[in-house]
Formats: sequence, C-alpha cells, structure tokens
Amino acid sequence: MFLRIDHIGIACRDLEEKIRLFSDTFDLTVVAREVNEEQGVKEAMLHISDGEGGGSYIQLLEPLSEDSPVGKFLAKRGEGVHHVAFGVRDVADAMGKISERGVRLLDERPRHGSMDSRIAFLHPKDVGGVLTELVQAAGR
Amino acid sequence: MFLRIDHIGIACRDLEEKIRLFSDTFDLTVVAREVNEEQGVKEAMLHISDGEGGGSYIQLLEPLSEDSPVGKFLAKRGEGVHHVAFGVRDVADAMGKISERGVRLLDERPRHGSMDSRIAFLHPKDVGGVLTELVQAAGR
Repeated sequence: MFLRIDHIGIACRDLEEKIRLFSDTFDLTVVAREVNEEQGVKEAMLHISDGEGGGSYIQLLEPLSEDSPVGKFLAKRGEGVHHVAFGVRDVADAMGKISERGVRLLDERPRHGSMDSRIAFLHPKDVGGVLTELVQAAGR
Repeated sequence: MFLRIDHIGIACRDLEEKIRLFSDTFDLTVVAREVNEEQGVKEAMLHISDGEGGGSYIQLLEPLSEDSPVGKFLAKRGEGVHHVAFGVRDVADAMGKISERGVRLLDERPRHGSMDSRIAFLHPKDVGGVLTELVQAAGR
C-alpha cells in the first residue's frame, strides 16, 4: 500500500529560520513553498530523494495563527515532528482499505495537499499516537 | 548528504501489538527484529521501499525498562514518533560536516544500529526539536 515515506512534517515557529537551518546543515534544497489557508500553515518542502510515485521530503510548517492545529501543537508540545506521510498510488482506494481495517480517518474525502497532491489524514489514536497522512502525488 | 529517509522511529508500549497494527493496516512486512541492550530497546523494522544506499522503514521501539531513553519518552510524551533517521553514504563523514556547521552530536563516534548499520544521533535542540539519526546502512 505504501510506495515510500513521502515526508516528515516538522512544526516550527519561524519558517525562514528553519529553512536556513535544515538547508545549510544538511545540503537540502527547497523545491516548493506555499500557504495552505485551509490547514492554517505556511510551509516549505525540502527535497531528499525520488522514489516510486513521487519524492521524499522534509516539510517545514509554520502556523498562520495560534488557534490553528499546528499552532496548538506548538503550544502544547513545542517544535518537532508534527506528522508523517506515506505515498500511495490512489489515496481514495487506500482510505477505503484502511477504514475497513478499523482505523478512523480524519478526512471523509481526499483534500488538497502540498505540491498539488491529494491527501488524507488518519486518526493518530488508531495509529500508535502518530498523526499519519496518505499522499497521492500529482501526476508528473 | 541525505540519500533517503531511512526510517521513522515510533515508541510503543507493546511491540507485538503494534507490529500487528502496522502490518495488518498498511500491508507491511517485518524484515528484522532485534534487541539493542545499549539503547535499551527491543525493536522491529517494517519495510516500506528501497532507495539509494539502503531501504526505508517504520521502526517500532519498545523500551526494555522505564528508565531507558524510550521508556522516559513514553512516560513524558506517550506513544508516537520518537526520532527520524536519514540515510547517508558515510556516517563519520556526515558527522564531521554537520558538527562543523554548529549542530551538536550526541555520539562522539558511530555506533551499532539496526540491521548492522552504523549510526549517530544529533542533538534535537539543534535540529528544530527533532531527534535526528544518521544511518549508514550495512553493505549489501
């Protein structure tokens, strides 16, 4: 079902500072920046490698407001890993299978993710405390 | 410097239960199990994909005791992502470069990791709150 680890989503307070830290320390390149109003974040994708069906990235996330999901996460847990994401071939198909197996979905249907992907989140309480995202990368 | 996301390390209270959850829900296969007395964990590696220089995995970690690092993590944070790991070609070389760039290392020299890899951890306070591991996979 999983083609690759798509990205590790890291919550931070200052996106530009963390882009500099990660790119300078690990020789990484920013390949996309966007603001996702629906999710209440501005973000950057730092490319690590290419794999089946898409790439692997570090995703840096700065909240647009304190009462957004990532804003609340920062207030409670501080900076660090917010979620992890796995690449799938067909996100709707994966959502169906996973739901049948008893894991709750946070999204009823796929929504828009980074770099025109289609994504869905799974309930962290059903996945060992890990906020888990499914990613169907945009066709290339 | 990074060839791939090597693994996502997830702390759990019951390794066998979580192996069943992740393998059944996501069709993953356990490719290695081991006990690492030095790190105070028993662990399992669930294979996701193959990439440059090695594979990508979910690593499930159950502490051997409450006063081990993963045991303390569970008591403080509960189950969830404990660390993330990136594949490098030469761990000693990567450690040197990263240290020169001002990020503190938790290990002075490479040590033994999962599946005969050579690994080193970076200080999470210098990497955006993320406990970060470098992995040089065993020659194949």
